[in-house]
Amino acid sequence: MSEPGRQKYVYAFEEGGRDQKYLLGGKGANLAEMTNLGLPVPPGFTISTDACKAYMALGDELPPGLMAEVAVARQQLEQKTGKLLGDADDPLLVSVRSGAPFSMPGMMDTVLNLGLNDNSVKGLAKQTQNERFAYDSYRRFVQMFGKIVLDVSGELFEEALHDLVESKSVSVDTELRAEDMAGLVDTFKGIVKSEAGVDFPTDPQEQLRYAVEAVFKSWNGRRARDYRRLERIPDDLGTAVNVQTMVFGNKGDDSGTGVAFTRNPSTGEHKPYGDFLKNAQGEDVVAGIRITEPLEAMSNEFPGPHMELLGLMKLLEDHYRDMCDIEFTIEQGRLFMLQTRIGKRTAAAALRMAVEMVDEGLIDTTEAVLRIQPAQLDQLLHPQFDPKAKFTVLAKGLNASPGAAVGKVYFTADEAEARHEAGELVILVRPETSPDDLHGMIAAEGILTSRGGLVSHAAVVARGMGKPAICGAEAVKIDLAGRTFTAGDTTVREGDVISINGTTGEIVVGEVPVITPEPSGPFGIILGWADGLRTLKVRTNADLPEDARKAREFGAEGIGLCRTEHMFLGDRLPIVQRMILADTPDDEAAALEELRAQQEADFEGILEAMDGLPVTVRLLDPPLHEFLPDHEELIVKQAKGEITEKELKLLHAAELWRESNPMLGTRGCRLGIIKPGLYRMQVRALMQAVVTRRRAGGNPIVEIMIPLIVSEPELRLLEQWTREEAGKVLRAANIEVDYLVGTMIETPRAALVADGIAEVAEFFSFGTNDLTQMTFGFSRDDVEGRFMSQYLENKLLSANPFETLDVEGVGQLVRMGCERGRATRADLKLGICGEHGGDPASVAFCHEVGLDYVSCSPYRVPIARLAAAHAAVGAGGPGASA
Amino acid sequence: MSEPGRQKYVYAFEEGGRDQKYLLGGKGANLAEMTNLGLPVPPGFTISTDACKAYMALGDELPPGLMAEVAVARQQLEQKTGKLLGDADDPLLVSVRSGAPFSMPGMMDTVLNLGLNDNSVKGLAKQTQNERFAYDSYRRFVQMFGKIVLDVSGELFEEALHDLVESKSVSVDTELRAEDMAGLVDTFKGIVKSEAGVDFPTDPQEQLRYAVEAVFKSWNGRRARDYRRLERIPDDLGTAVNVQTMVFGNKGDDSGTGVAFTRNPSTGEHKPYGDFLKNAQGEDVVAGIRITEPLEAMSNEFPGPHMELLGLMKLLEDHYRDMCDIEFTIEQGRLFMLQTRIGKRTAAAALRMAVEMVDEGLIDTTEAVLRIQPAQLDQLLHPQFDPKAKFTVLAKGLNASPGAAVGKVYFTADEAEARHEAGELVILVRPETSPDDLHGMIAAEGILTSRGGLVSHAAVVARGMGKPAICGAEAVKIDLAGRTFTAGDTTVREGDVISINGTTGEIVVGEVPVITPEPSGPFGIILGWADGLRTLKVRTNADLPEDARKAREFGAEGIGLCRTEHMFLGDRLPIVQRMILADTPDDEAAALEELRAQQEADFEGILEAMDGLPVTVRLLDPPLHEFLPDHEELIVKQAKGEITEKELKLLHAAELWRESNPMLGTRGCRLGIIKPGLYRMQVRALMQAVVTRRRAGGNPIVEIMIPLIVSEPELRLLEQWTREEAGKVLRAANIEVDYLVGTMIETPRAALVADGIAEVAEFFSFGTNDLTQMTFGFSRDDVEGRFMSQYLENKLLSANPFETLDVEGVGQLVRMGCERGRATRADLKLGICGEHGGDPASVAFCHEVGLDYVSCSPYRVPIARLAAAHAAVGAGGPGASA
Repeated sequence: MSEPGRQKYVYAFEEGGRDQKYLLGGKGANLAEMTNLGLPVPPGFTISTDACKAYMALGDELPPGLMAEVAVARQQLEQKTGKLLGDADDPLLVSVRSGAPFSMPGMMDTVLNLGLNDNSVKGLAKQTQNERFAYDSYRRFVQMFGKIVLDVSGELFEEALHDLVESKSVSVDTELRAEDMAGLVDTFKGIVKSEAGVDFPTDPQEQLRYAVEAVFKSWNGRRARDYRRLERIPDDLGTAVNVQTMVFGNKGDDSGTGVAFTRNPSTGEHKPYGDFLKNAQGEDVVAGIRITEPLEAMSNEFPGPHMELLGLMKLLEDHYRDMCDIEFTIEQGRLFMLQTRIGKRTAAAALRMAVEMVDEGLIDTTEAVLRIQPAQLDQLLHPQFDPKAKFTVLAKGLNASPGAAVGKVYFTADEAEARHEAGELVILVRPETSPDDLHGMIAAEGILTSRGGLVSHAAVVARGMGKPAICGAEAVKIDLAGRTFTAGDTTVREGDVISINGTTGEIVVGEVPVITPEPSGPFGIILGWADGLRTLKVRTNADLPEDARKAREFGAEGIGLCRTEHMFLGDRLPIVQRMILADTPDDEAAALEELRAQQEADFEGILEAMDGLPVTVRLLDPPLHEFLPDHEELIVKQAKGEITEKELKLLHAAELWRESNPMLGTRGCRLGIIKPGLYRMQVRALMQAVVTRRRAGGNPIVEIMIPLIVSEPELRLLEQWTREEAGKVLRAANIEVDYLVGTMIETPRAALVADGIAEVAEFFSFGTNDLTQMTFGFSRDDVEGRFMSQYLENKLLSANPFETLDVEGVGQLVRMGCERGRATRADLKLGICGEHGGDPASVAFCHEVGLDYVSCSPYRVPIARLAAAHAAVGAGGPGASA
Repeated sequence: MSEPGRQKYVYAFEEGGRDQKYLLGGKGANLAEMTNLGLPVPPGFTISTDACKAYMALGDELPPGLMAEVAVARQQLEQKTGKLLGDADDPLLVSVRSGAPFSMPGMMDTVLNLGLNDNSVKGLAKQTQNERFAYDSYRRFVQMFGKIVLDVSGELFEEALHDLVESKSVSVDTELRAEDMAGLVDTFKGIVKSEAGVDFPTDPQEQLRYAVEAVFKSWNGRRARDYRRLERIPDDLGTAVNVQTMVFGNKGDDSGTGVAFTRNPSTGEHKPYGDFLKNAQGEDVVAGIRITEPLEAMSNEFPGPHMELLGLMKLLEDHYRDMCDIEFTIEQGRLFMLQTRIGKRTAAAALRMAVEMVDEGLIDTTEAVLRIQPAQLDQLLHPQFDPKAKFTVLAKGLNASPGAAVGKVYFTADEAEARHEAGELVILVRPETSPDDLHGMIAAEGILTSRGGLVSHAAVVARGMGKPAICGAEAVKIDLAGRTFTAGDTTVREGDVISINGTTGEIVVGEVPVITPEPSGPFGIILGWADGLRTLKVRTNADLPEDARKAREFGAEGIGLCRTEHMFLGDRLPIVQRMILADTPDDEAAALEELRAQQEADFEGILEAMDGLPVTVRLLDPPLHEFLPDHEELIVKQAKGEITEKELKLLHAAELWRESNPMLGTRGCRLGIIKPGLYRMQVRALMQAVVTRRRAGGNPIVEIMIPLIVSEPELRLLEQWTREEAGKVLRAANIEVDYLVGTMIETPRAALVADGIAEVAEFFSFGTNDLTQMTFGFSRDDVEGRFMSQYLENKLLSANPFETLDVEGVGQLVRMGCERGRATRADLKLGICGEHGGDPASVAFCHEVGLDYVSCSPYRVPIARLAAAHAAVGAGGPGASA
């Protein structure tokens, strides 16, 4: 029946080991490891992931020969245990569990007591001398098998049980008798027959085949696929199936079951931790139906097994050199180990364990650093909904800026500011935000918008401020005039309290308790070790002195991107508009001069905050129309006859400067070239600030960055202007200052002609936000809400390229830019200032292509430091070498 | 004084030849050639372009040693002629002319009679026995030298002359006497002194130095630079200077001067052609002050020189194997050749000459093909303003679609259509056009818009129709309500006649005579020869059967881009809007079904027109909001309270679908993916048309093209859908049809991952319009009007990348796409359907990278055929190997 030379599909636990998780799944590999360590593991075997892959390749059919191999393994198991499946005297019963290479919710989990039928139930009754227990087990098996394997709605079984309880006039099912249970088995079989259209399989071999197929099928279930997409687990790994002899924790008061961790997974404390339940099966512990006791309580009633367990836990931790998560059962006084794995833990616990395990000599500092997933640190840097809190999610939006916030809803920036000043906590809710809303955003605890993507104004500004934000919450319909918003049937009024979780995108009506973690000692220790490992520098994107200071606290080694846009907003806006509307060069120059004086002070503040560290200042990037009122608003005013003389002038300017595709329009260096006074003014302001700082004894280090370059001559012209202006200021002050002039590489063309551009540029900073937009032709604001989810769902893209750098496409341009730039100028300084600079997988790529530094928002600096260390040790994320 | 081993700067005519135009300039090389042919050329020497390059390298200073070398050459010239510069008895006089490697207006042209001073003027008087002539020559020299070399305003001299004429009470200057002229010399010297701040140089050697410097300086004059930018002549070539013994055509009635062509430069007729003027200098012929006689007239008064001239012309043509343009002078009965070069000619003349020279055995067919510049053909394909017409240009816009048109101004499409139907010729004038204006554009002779760039709706549609259009004429202020437009002080009312020249962008009030060239026999012959040489196929971009037929007449070998957008416009628009507004899938499907039936007929028409040739059909590309009314118009209506129920629905849809950067938004395959019914409908309609055509005995060949692809899985999904739908239609009809499925490569990412995409695609078509936009980050609509001219002016770009493919940047991606695509699939069909497909330099690049075909608008097909032949022979334009 089986082809010659066909691969082996089934492995006894004795045949495997922990390194074989791709073949045996995580669970199977660890069961094998424990078996070979001599731990008391109930015997069993594992059907490998190869079988699952073959099943998928055949179009969802079990590969030929598989069930024959299973039959052989079953026979060996019968020999080992001295029991027979389906035996009427002393039947072998098994559990069937899925087990993928990576822990994966959403798949078929567990079927217990497989092997029960009308015959073997009698054997079970005989062995346990408990007929009620046997038939209860049988009806539970039919119920579980029907629901999980045959896809029958669980409610039907629950209803039938409920009806029986009522008809027997008892209060709970535990009061039902053995014959009631036997009747229930028949009722449940009837439900299976009518719902699944098949007779309940009584042949244990057939039960096994059904269960194996159900596990394989669940691998491609909707939830499993969603989970894999989210976690970037490849679809072709497949899952294994574990078949294991049943042991019973519910055989009486000398039995029990529990889960345990070798250390506290929540705090990291070095002390066994767990839950225990007497006379129960594992499911009861997990389901939380009965109240568990702490692990320590075992020592009274099960002193022997308790001691044995503690010993085994120590043995496992020493063997795995990490905190283990264990499931165990005591059957009539005898301890069995049912599962172990490296335990999940909170970020705080992970840090503490890692540091303590180094102290204990269990691991070295490099391994300690690798034990912490960079993305985990986010938990420690932002307030979070209390994990213990219960709440109902009203709606979800895009998780635009991490952290949680609670406050009263206000719909305008002015109102938000006023209420904030009156002492209220405020959530600013807007369709979208614009630079005009900045004061409201500063006043708010958090921001919620119904439109805009992850790179919308609200998202970018909020991330910069480290303030929670949810954007593009399309389910939220805002009625600005009515001062309410509606989601589904719920209407939220101005002043109502809501809670938002920017880490997950959840919006909740009312107050959810929020906890604010305090970065602990281990946090600093681990990051210190990480710093010792990494070669990439980590800078920050910061526009304001406060942000710069915050980032420095987090370990930033300079500013990789100081945007100067904000220096044109707020109370400067009227001056900027005067510049735009100027009728004569003199008027324009006068407005620019006014701006210069103010920007000089801005630059001084930033240079002071980053004294002694490099500060990369990007000259003005956005298009001019961003400094004018919205064209449409003015048009509407005009239509209504409500437009003022001044607004009419602004309307004409807005008309003149508006563009069909502003992303690809007159901004960055293009604006710099057609409005030469602008960049010259910025350079003068910056260099004067440098002079002032130097005179005050400071050590300002500046790198002037010119955005949106497409060609060498373009950069050459602007570099000349820059050096001319800087030279004038420095000569007048009689001060010598070294400074660099460089450019962003953010158009595909700049990467393609990087060899030429490096003739002029002293540094490159890859602006991967724009580079991604142009390489894909994706306007982030337009595509994230419209089709990105569908693209990810259908696997048309492997990841959102705005979150994780698209190594396959955009990455080629980055690599090209690096190689060609360095070919021209060997000491060219290379960095990245797109938001990818704070994404661990992208950081790994940045390390690989040889960047000097990454730059990211202040709150992602620790994450980037850790990710850079991982990259240096060669433990890049899945995107690193794709 | 001169460095050892320094290069030689000065060459006697005897030392050069026609191949040395880069060293000696075109004029100098040809003078040398004629000298060595033994033709009667007045002796002289050439200062090489190397001297000019050295001058520039030194920061506008004559290189050391140059004037010493000139002095030696001057002495040799004095020996050769037996005359001395500045001699009071028989002075040598010379002309000084610039001469660059390429003919270049805008540079210093000519100084005659150099060598005259208070001393030598006496010698000239003695030699000519004409004191008045001598002093007239002297005052002309001072005037010319002052104006051209010393930059003194010419008007001052004219005024002084005018004053003298008045004070002497004569009517014209020819009545002034010798002593009047002598006085004028002094007056002129005074003007020079006060204006230029220097004494008029009397030392001939000094005069020469001044003149040489003036030539070199003029190389970098504004007009010369502009011209070079336009003609893409490198700035570093430099110019030569020719110093040549003067001969006088104005020494009396036995003297004269003229210009001649060996064939008629206007018609190409094989017959000498030219103008002659007795007793005159060359300048008089060119200036057109006196009425010239035709060349034939010489035979009466100058029979000897005339015969000699005809002989020399024959000799020159045989030697140069091309039509020559000649300047000659007869001094006292003796013929001198002053200049020759390959003559400029009209397109019609070029074709006729090339064909006739092949007949005469002068050149072979390959050379004949190379003699025609592809861009020249445009003259023969569109109506043009009559070159003889005089007119005043009111304003200029962008030359959006070539050809000239005359008509009455109307401001709405409806009015334009109505007047057209009433028999009027109409020019449609709009701020910009939209698909709603299509019927008006069809009715109009030409289109004028005040907004929009070279890729605006008006421009693209007009080019497709082969209809003249001027776009983005910012000087034109349109008052739609008042039905007028104003440019400067001129107001044009509805119904007024204007003329527009879409080839130049000129707008003229009133009627300019227009001539419509008829492609002649030679046109077809040359293109036939070209077809024999080229390896690139030439297809057309055509959306309508009429366009396809026109293109086929012009030699198109298929359709490379059939856009399907128009199938959604006009009377289909309400159906499309119904589809967009559909509340249920059923409503959407019903609207799509209605569209399908109509599109099927469209496809039939196109397939019939291109029967037997491949037709590449692009599935829908534009975003949905293009099929909705303008958002702003609706908002204004709403503000005014004038919005209808239906418009309100449309407004909500417009709001839903509008985007910040539509170019980078939800269009092309992205729309195809989120609205699956759309592409499926188009495929069904197309394949049903194929079935119908096959049943009618036709041979339809289709290639289905999916736009805006960024990844392989994206294309794979759509290819599956396409094959599913096509399969259904063909199976139902029981017909077997081969068809290709391929994609546009128009995002940078598609080019970068072309290897993967070619796993699915059977052909690539490079959409270089979008590819250029995304590679540069230039939205064409926004940048062409805003900063492109400034970028070209400042040489930040070498050419407008939307006109000529940017080989340096975008070209890398095209090359990458070709190489990687063919690495995966060796027989991958490659084409280009951006507008570059009709640009000769870009065609050369397409040939070089190995494309199979180019596709361009119907009226550019002949140009592309010729350009492809040039490329195959290896005579690509300047952009070809850049």
